[in-house]
Amino acid sequence: MKVFFDEIDVLTESRTELVDISSYVEDHVRKSNIKNGFCLAYALHSTVAIIVNEHETGLIQDIINKVEKDFPKGMGWLHDRIDDNADAHLASTFIGPSRIFPIKNGRLVKGKWQNIFVLELDGPRTRKIVLETLGE
Amino acid sequence: MKVFFDEIDVLTESRTELVDISSYVEDHVRKSNIKNGFCLAYALHSTVAIIVNEHETGLIQDIINKVEKDFPKGMGWLHDRIDDNADAHLASTFIGPSRIFPIKNGRLVKGKWQNIFVLELDGPRTRKIVLETLGE
Amino acid sequence: MKVFFDEIDVLTESRTELVDISSYVEDHVRKSNIKNGFCLAYALHSTVAIIVNEHETGLIQDIINKVEKDFPKGMGWLHDRIDDNADAHLASTFIGPSRIFPIKNGRLVKGKWQNIFVLELDGPRTRKIVLETLGE
Repeated sequence: MKVFFDEIDVLTESRTELVDISSYVEDHVRKSNIKNGFCLAYALHSTVAIIVNEHETGLIQDIINKVEKDFPKGMGWLHDRIDDNADAHLASTFIGPSRIFPIKNGRLVKGKWQNIFVLELDGPRTRKIVLETLGE
Repeated sequence: MKVFFDEIDVLTESRTELVDISSYVEDHVRKSNIKNGFCLAYALHSTVAIIVNEHETGLIQDIINKVEKDFPKGMGWLHDRIDDNADAHLASTFIGPSRIFPIKNGRLVKGKWQNIFVLELDGPRTRKIVLETLGE
Repeated sequence: MKVFFDEIDVLTESRTELVDISSYVEDHVRKSNIKNGFCLAYALHSTVAIIVNEHETGLIQDIINKVEKDFPKGMGWLHDRIDDNADAHLASTFIGPSRIFPIKNGRLVKGKWQNIFVLELDGPRTRKIVLETLGE
């Protein structure tokens, strides 16, 4: 059994933003030399989520619009008395801080229309994403 | 350490639909001969999700109704200019393409009222689900 | 390769409630003696979810309010004809019954503002949460 770790820094430029990290995750799996196992992409933050979907410009904007509509800023959230970002915490809570993938024959398994994104919910910031591959 | 893979084809008949794949996942775990580990059910699609809940006819319809209400079709989504299914991509993005389970004493661990479903969001289609069990 | 299991009982006191189980999960990882791997927290219930976010009193109430607003009780759900808790099943379906974490150098990896909670959706009840750490 082998375990291999990476940590990537993602710099975001807007409050709500998607950053495609697919190539970083694929490089990580290649460097791990692990043939079969699991790969976890895990965000060390409570105002970020990891999501999987198609990299298409219109859809990326649809995702941003949908998040901002479903988790609106400044609605009198109680957490806003401490830090003005309750909406970002709520979206991260429901969507989740990670996604996990099969590794087969040394490659990350995902569909043709599946890319891996960091969903920034309270940028701009520098975000740390842990990548871990475990297998043989 | 052992790793065992299966891929199942799921044929759906409606645009939004739940297909119970619990017995396929349990057969996969049995065939793996793995006693303790993890089992991942992963959909290779960006308009599908994997979910876990009770197999009850009314609830299945409630889930379909709730998805269609929260992710409505044809709301002027930008992705619809490319392909008329942005609502399906959005639901898959937020719910997620996979669920993972403990394996203990050779059995899939889940609650009495937990079944595993493919949530089709843009059917009818043939869908590919990767099953992977890793352990000892 | 090693696999280590725990099961914790969580007693809830309200219909919707967050219970912070971070210290239980950290104790479990310590007891496992596993240095590098994955840790899964998995709820054996279809009216519970596992979530990760900041332990701040205002935010905890915001999460409860948001769940109750987005998954309202008594809206004529079909499952309510069987058991009066369709709203709880729907929230669990979309949010998910588990979260998974990296284990590195014998410690659970999570961000400074990330705690692990059981999200009770149909309490008060006693809930069983499986903790599993796999690694070396």
